[in-house]
Amino acid sequence: MSRKLYHGAAYYPELWNEGVIEEDIQQMKEVGINVVRMGEFAWSNTEPEKDKFDIEFFTSIINRLYEHGIETVMCTPTPTPPRWFSYGHPERMYVDHEGKVMDHGSRQHACTNHPYFRERAALVTENLARAVGSLPGVIGWQIDNEFKCHVSECMCHTCKEQWHDWLKNRYETIENLNEAWGTKIWSEYYHSFEEVPQPGPAPFLHNSSLSTMYQLFSMEKIAEFSDEQAEIIRGYSKAPITHNSSIAFSVDNERLFKHLDFASFDTYAAYDNFPAYLINSDLWRNFKKGKGFWVMETSPSYAASLESHGTPHPNGYLKVEAAAAYALGAEGFCYWLWRQQRAGCEQPHGSVLSAWGKPTVGYQNVLEVEQLRKDIEPVILATTPSQAQLAITYSDRSKAFLKTEPHRNLSHRSLVTDFYERILTMGIHRDLIPEEASLDGYKVLMTPFIHYLSSEYIKRAEQFVKEGGTWIVGPLTGGRTEEHTVHTDFALGELERISGADVLFTYPMDDTGSIGRAFDVSAPLGMWSSVFEHNQDTVVGTIEEGLSAGKAFITEHALGAGKIVMLGSLPLGDAGDQLIQRLVDHYCVGANVSLRTDVTKGTIVAPRQGDGYSIWFVINMDGNGGSVTLPKEGLDMQTNTKVNPGTLKLEKFEYRVIQFNEK
Amino acid sequence: MSRKLYHGAAYYPELWNEGVIEEDIQQMKEVGINVVRMGEFAWSNTEPEKDKFDIEFFTSIINRLYEHGIETVMCTPTPTPPRWFSYGHPERMYVDHEGKVMDHGSRQHACTNHPYFRERAALVTENLARAVGSLPGVIGWQIDNEFKCHVSECMCHTCKEQWHDWLKNRYETIENLNEAWGTKIWSEYYHSFEEVPQPGPAPFLHNSSLSTMYQLFSMEKIAEFSDEQAEIIRGYSKAPITHNSSIAFSVDNERLFKHLDFASFDTYAAYDNFPAYLINSDLWRNFKKGKGFWVMETSPSYAASLESHGTPHPNGYLKVEAAAAYALGAEGFCYWLWRQQRAGCEQPHGSVLSAWGKPTVGYQNVLEVEQLRKDIEPVILATTPSQAQLAITYSDRSKAFLKTEPHRNLSHRSLVTDFYERILTMGIHRDLIPEEASLDGYKVLMTPFIHYLSSEYIKRAEQFVKEGGTWIVGPLTGGRTEEHTVHTDFALGELERISGADVLFTYPMDDTGSIGRAFDVSAPLGMWSSVFEHNQDTVVGTIEEGLSAGKAFITEHALGAGKIVMLGSLPLGDAGDQLIQRLVDHYCVGANVSLRTDVTKGTIVAPRQGDGYSIWFVINMDGNGGSVTLPKEGLDMQTNTKVNPGTLKLEKFEYRVIQFNEK
Amino acid sequence: MSRKLYHGAAYYPELWNEGVIEEDIQQMKEVGINVVRMGEFAWSNTEPEKDKFDIEFFTSIINRLYEHGIETVMCTPTPTPPRWFSYGHPERMYVDHEGKVMDHGSRQHACTNHPYFRERAALVTENLARAVGSLPGVIGWQIDNEFKCHVSECMCHTCKEQWHDWLKNRYETIENLNEAWGTKIWSEYYHSFEEVPQPGPAPFLHNSSLSTMYQLFSMEKIAEFSDEQAEIIRGYSKAPITHNSSIAFSVDNERLFKHLDFASFDTYAAYDNFPAYLINSDLWRNFKKGKGFWVMETSPSYAASLESHGTPHPNGYLKVEAAAAYALGAEGFCYWLWRQQRAGCEQPHGSVLSAWGKPTVGYQNVLEVEQLRKDIEPVILATTPSQAQLAITYSDRSKAFLKTEPHRNLSHRSLVTDFYERILTMGIHRDLIPEEASLDGYKVLMTPFIHYLSSEYIKRAEQFVKEGGTWIVGPLTGGRTEEHTVHTDFALGELERISGADVLFTYPMDDTGSIGRAFDVSAPLGMWSSVFEHNQDTVVGTIEEGLSAGKAFITEHALGAGKIVMLGSLPLGDAGDQLIQRLVDHYCVGANVSLRTDVTKGTIVAPRQGDGYSIWFVINMDGNGGSVTLPKEGLDMQTNTKVNPGTLKLEKFEYRVIQFNEK
Repeated sequence: MSRKLYHGAAYYPELWNEGVIEEDIQQMKEVGINVVRMGEFAWSNTEPEKDKFDIEFFTSIINRLYEHGIETVMCTPTPTPPRWFSYGHPERMYVDHEGKVMDHGSRQHACTNHPYFRERAALVTENLARAVGSLPGVIGWQIDNEFKCHVSECMCHTCKEQWHDWLKNRYETIENLNEAWGTKIWSEYYHSFEEVPQPGPAPFLHNSSLSTMYQLFSMEKIAEFSDEQAEIIRGYSKAPITHNSSIAFSVDNERLFKHLDFASFDTYAAYDNFPAYLINSDLWRNFKKGKGFWVMETSPSYAASLESHGTPHPNGYLKVEAAAAYALGAEGFCYWLWRQQRAGCEQPHGSVLSAWGKPTVGYQNVLEVEQLRKDIEPVILATTPSQAQLAITYSDRSKAFLKTEPHRNLSHRSLVTDFYERILTMGIHRDLIPEEASLDGYKVLMTPFIHYLSSEYIKRAEQFVKEGGTWIVGPLTGGRTEEHTVHTDFALGELERISGADVLFTYPMDDTGSIGRAFDVSAPLGMWSSVFEHNQDTVVGTIEEGLSAGKAFITEHALGAGKIVMLGSLPLGDAGDQLIQRLVDHYCVGANVSLRTDVTKGTIVAPRQGDGYSIWFVINMDGNGGSVTLPKEGLDMQTNTKVNPGTLKLEKFEYRVIQFNEK
Repeated sequence: MSRKLYHGAAYYPELWNEGVIEEDIQQMKEVGINVVRMGEFAWSNTEPEKDKFDIEFFTSIINRLYEHGIETVMCTPTPTPPRWFSYGHPERMYVDHEGKVMDHGSRQHACTNHPYFRERAALVTENLARAVGSLPGVIGWQIDNEFKCHVSECMCHTCKEQWHDWLKNRYETIENLNEAWGTKIWSEYYHSFEEVPQPGPAPFLHNSSLSTMYQLFSMEKIAEFSDEQAEIIRGYSKAPITHNSSIAFSVDNERLFKHLDFASFDTYAAYDNFPAYLINSDLWRNFKKGKGFWVMETSPSYAASLESHGTPHPNGYLKVEAAAAYALGAEGFCYWLWRQQRAGCEQPHGSVLSAWGKPTVGYQNVLEVEQLRKDIEPVILATTPSQAQLAITYSDRSKAFLKTEPHRNLSHRSLVTDFYERILTMGIHRDLIPEEASLDGYKVLMTPFIHYLSSEYIKRAEQFVKEGGTWIVGPLTGGRTEEHTVHTDFALGELERISGADVLFTYPMDDTGSIGRAFDVSAPLGMWSSVFEHNQDTVVGTIEEGLSAGKAFITEHALGAGKIVMLGSLPLGDAGDQLIQRLVDHYCVGANVSLRTDVTKGTIVAPRQGDGYSIWFVINMDGNGGSVTLPKEGLDMQTNTKVNPGTLKLEKFEYRVIQFNEK
Repeated sequence: MSRKLYHGAAYYPELWNEGVIEEDIQQMKEVGINVVRMGEFAWSNTEPEKDKFDIEFFTSIINRLYEHGIETVMCTPTPTPPRWFSYGHPERMYVDHEGKVMDHGSRQHACTNHPYFRERAALVTENLARAVGSLPGVIGWQIDNEFKCHVSECMCHTCKEQWHDWLKNRYETIENLNEAWGTKIWSEYYHSFEEVPQPGPAPFLHNSSLSTMYQLFSMEKIAEFSDEQAEIIRGYSKAPITHNSSIAFSVDNERLFKHLDFASFDTYAAYDNFPAYLINSDLWRNFKKGKGFWVMETSPSYAASLESHGTPHPNGYLKVEAAAAYALGAEGFCYWLWRQQRAGCEQPHGSVLSAWGKPTVGYQNVLEVEQLRKDIEPVILATTPSQAQLAITYSDRSKAFLKTEPHRNLSHRSLVTDFYERILTMGIHRDLIPEEASLDGYKVLMTPFIHYLSSEYIKRAEQFVKEGGTWIVGPLTGGRTEEHTVHTDFALGELERISGADVLFTYPMDDTGSIGRAFDVSAPLGMWSSVFEHNQDTVVGTIEEGLSAGKAFITEHALGAGKIVMLGSLPLGDAGDQLIQRLVDHYCVGANVSLRTDVTKGTIVAPRQGDGYSIWFVINMDGNGGSVTLPKEGLDMQTNTKVNPGTLKLEKFEYRVIQFNEK
């Protein structure tokens, strides 16, 4: 990839005739599209009959686009095996949790673990990579498309056998598995790995270990498929490889990106839920830290399918979406899709051009993005996102645990998004980091809603604390073992031991009339909670009312040069939000978190670091305008004029780029 | 059929003993029932063992009823094949979208496309027709019963093969199908018709063309079955043939009635939703224009099954239901059912007599209907429903398109019913007409909510306009091709070309804050919309706020002696209703629509034409009373007294019959 | 069993190691647990491999507990057959209504009617009973666990065959079945029992008789299994046998307990729905009248599984739950469970000890129960629950009828619970009695919501009335035959005949604007209703408005020395509650029902009878405190002091035991 900002779109030339393609290329140039993503569903074009490969079409398109200054992210076409793969072979297809076998049509209809699928996927990818891997237009690769966005764990016979192999590998002996899962319960006990069922139809819930392990197995297998595909491509191409993922899919993103070259995501968050848009940038930046990520798909106006549709963005919003992404570390900002589909099931989806070649309702906004891209490219290329001082751990593995055990209806994704929004609103620059990420550079680490905390994570966090960090743990964190069972030594196992906390009870606190007080705020408490012994040396938050009145729900424990803060419950409602923000504020102040502004709600500051100077991107996301206090004189990069210290006001969907010299 | 008004009931003598039957006949005579419908579920009576036919029971009952002055509409018994048909033959049974195979029990459990079903259905119908076809008591036939009321498209193996044949017939080559459906998308591409799947289990949505064509295939096949059955009956009987259908079922009513002799429907609309009752008469009148239709089933008080029940009608409502039906063109008004079931799954359903032979809560209302029938029969027989000047096109094909593509949750049936209610409330006499109906006699044609508009329809409507008609098109009309794809020439394809409209964008306008203004009313705009270029020569409605502020949502285009009005969005809320009514008012006035009164909401006027005079049936449907202005002196047909011009008031559930002499 | 009050817990020593077990026993002694229930899921422990039995573990545990003063209720382990039973044998598994076959995991996954299941269940139970049946520690047995709590009617092939046998036994000839079920309807007609389907997938509802009979078949078969198991145990043990059931499960409790020795139930009602807790004691006392029942499972604080959780009890509530149970006739009060599970799917469930051995949030409440148990044991052992004078019939068979025919969404369980709550609130001591219970000792009998009333029941109730009783019948009672068809002689068949009522109509009265007046209260009327002729001699409640204005909805008919009161509709809302309570009050006063107090809402009085004295347990259940008027001087059994006549006040969750001498 070149050193530039990419502005792109998903493109499906295989669906259109020559006249349309020519028109598309001209239009792309007018708009300023400098990259397209192609080929992710084109298996039947690439291999129309078994073993008859035809890559010429794409080779030619890639070259032609390149001649017009448009580069290509090429995709492997594996989400949609052709009819010759599926016809007459139900055993190759995805089987859902109720036992329904998928037929041809839609996508992700094949079992990605079936040996024949893997064999054919390898072949088509090899042929494709060999043909286009060294074309100058190909600047990157995308493996497949949105793994596990429509499906989750396959229940086919092939998966059953591989599940048994995976278990053998994990547990070595069936006795180990029986012990780990506690299978003496309900006479589940297995005499061999072959006897372990898949979590299919049952009168009531399956064993939590079975349900969670089957998810981990499935997430591992799809990542393994991704690895295989990447290896094949690397044999023929030097272009970096990614996958377009999301926290909404049934994958372990940390594992998935481990062997890929750069990270990218798809997002279709509604404009009035912009924190759900921003969270992606703050997380994806950290899957491949130091490398730019891509927004691989977002709608120029609205997402839609035959059955549903989002609300079109208000004018101006697309521009600030792009501004925020680039400022927070994106190198590419791409639409799904360039030209509206004429067939299939996503014809209603928003696009840059309509199926009849006219500008869509989003078109003017796309032009605004291109103007923005040109305006900020020099600033972005000269700087890098500032290192955050506060990190929140995000875990797809924890998502799987909570899918098995949602209590009432908890989801890791939405819980963390809510938590993230509070930090965002406080004007604190932040990272979301995967579980295995380095903790270097952080002053405050938050670990909420992670049912199972690995021993390795606890050790690193303990070290982080000893070296002076502040670790805020909970709520809902640490109460489960690696095997998705309950600890038998302490409520929170190893975590409880190293923190020095003393957990008296754990129970669901919702609707029990519990009130907690901390930082001069009283708030209702809820969620599955840990109640701590009330010790004058450690107590920070006291339960004032409820079953555990007089006990503690927040405690603080010194360890080395730092401290561990245990948050046992979730404070609820407006008072709860206030309490949490005061807690975060207290510990951020204490930890000397300086990357923070007084930006008003709905507006964000994205700080970047240059050589001897820093940059603030100040961006109004909510359409209500906003303001922030500039701490010192800066330079407005758009007008090249000085701006005084003090209040900087922004209009609706306005963004400003302010440079501050560092002394 | 004789020249009289029929007042009837569904009757199941095969379920009762001789004593009860004798009691029933006496009671029917007392009540005034002059026709019964029989036999639609009696296959196991008629052919208790395979090839052992026994029609004697029905022959005898028909004759006996006839002797008592009660005529018969005889049914073919094909909705419920006997146990000898189903036992041990799952391959003959209906298979639902999830792959579940039906077992014996309930009804419509057989696949109506299975060759063996067709063979046995032909045999039983032939035997039945031969035996009773020339009996004097048999004045009509009903094929089967409520086709596709419980089921929709069968997914069995037989259907799969016939689906392939149907596709071959439609597309001739698989290449044509691939092109038409755009199957290069998502590698759906088929190499032979055999490879085309049924739209069964898939991870996400099927191709829209596949889903819609499978519905059209299913609707065509059931009509073909109806045709086959009718042909057999015609070999033995001169009595006219119908089917009791509904806009709620998965059939194409226009196609279904094409080869039948008269039209009939079943309705169980609640009294407080009387427009949903009336719409049937205004539509069914036009399936066989010029012939009377039948209300083949309606409840004397309330519908019910084991699992649910409607609310009993208020006293007086049944009478005005009958009055409205007869006035709007019905020749028959029949109850389901005469005597409450003692067994099965519809025991709770309202009836004329209870299972223990007593009058039910609806009984007095049935007597009122009989009195009405006697009172109005001379007037009805001497007149015919007046030709409406405004027509709204209703399309079951469009219902199928919207089932495939409901956007959020749109249904053709409910959208058109809402639209119809507005016209009804305006006091305009109206027709609902099927797509292929002649446009002769109309001044205003409305075509809302028809995703795909056939070329043939467009040509006829264009001709209608050229000859002076006003055609109001939209919202949601014309954006899809015959193959359920998106146009690639213009947003609305051929429609856009002939109308002269210039569609800029199409997008879902709900929740975007869009406001439109026309006819001095501003209203919120919603629904998937077409936005038009704002041209001073054509604009009628301007978008004042929202993403497309300054553009048009209503335009008017002169063509020949008439005009095409394009309605791009659905105005919402009370203001939206007002805007639509002003639009309709404006164009009805302009087109000189004269069959219109100032009748108050909840009351209707049904105009009929006699020789040198006209008749108004004025009927209060909502139980609140109402009024209408009589334009000149008339004659009250019930009292044979003059009524002055001016306000005519009606009491709760009152009806009046006013004759006006024409000069 | 000894003469004492049991305070127990479910215990799973097979899941824990020796150290934990030792700790458990010590803790149980500290807490005061004097009985444990064990083994109900331990089949794989007891018979780890086919035919290899190992009972030694339990023998040893039982003896060891006994040595520490803890007795055992031993369970048969049949709800969870081991993997050797299920592996490779889908034909042995439970099949749901959609045809899904269960796999190993969860519980109740086997078909309990499969001959091989019965064979293996007999073997394991015999081995178990032989080994532990005469141990001194075993004081009782529990068959299986919560029959049909997760499943209802199995649809497997084995069940199909046994269903046919059951039908042959019931109907003798297929012609009898056809006639009884009215199968001529919809051509359901069967030529042999083999042709009768199970009520599986169908396009619409099955015949009501088929659906109901399949439920009765299923309920009979599970009771038959229980009988078989009990017989085996009796060969080796003299300890009495029970099953832990509930009105929430798909069983006929009356039939189930017929051949068992004592009755027990499980309940997890929320504290703010305490009538749903109390109803169990008032019903279970009467399954084995004169014998104490057991609360076999209730939570020490809250119920939970991976997917959901209840709200923890407020402190103090558990104590009054135990007080109410013991006072109303319980001999045992047991928790589920002693030690929190570490694995499986119920880890989150409330327990006495946590998985890590600490007291839980419920622990202090358990100690309060133990204190209570000690305090009241002498009083309880010296007295018995007073004979109620008012009885309400509860029928699981009627539950099945309403499951087949829920009208809109009626359930026998919730209807009766609501009705019960009204009686409870009125301070009337009451029994819920099964259908075949003796009516001796009652003055007022209520029979609401029983669709089918057996001839035998009617005869007994008639006799009860003739001898002076007051029988209040309805609403919704008596309108169906034994075969779940509708009567053909009178609306209410035999009931109507003996009552002398004259039913004019039956129809669903909801939303018809019907108002009824009786006992000086006017209230809206709803529910499927019987309308009676208005006869001055019999009318008690008149319909003032609606379709049947002027007719009666309550009538009273003298019969012998007593009276039958027919309640045709359900009075609704607050006024309806008032009307029902005045009706009950009126007839209780008339019938001289004396076991009644003026206790305030939320507090109950449980009367018990001693030798020459009576006892009142006055218990505040709702946490708001309350009061009752003492009719005369009494003795406070807790303080051994006199209490004066007049108002006795109770604090939040307080209970008082007052003794009154009888003269």
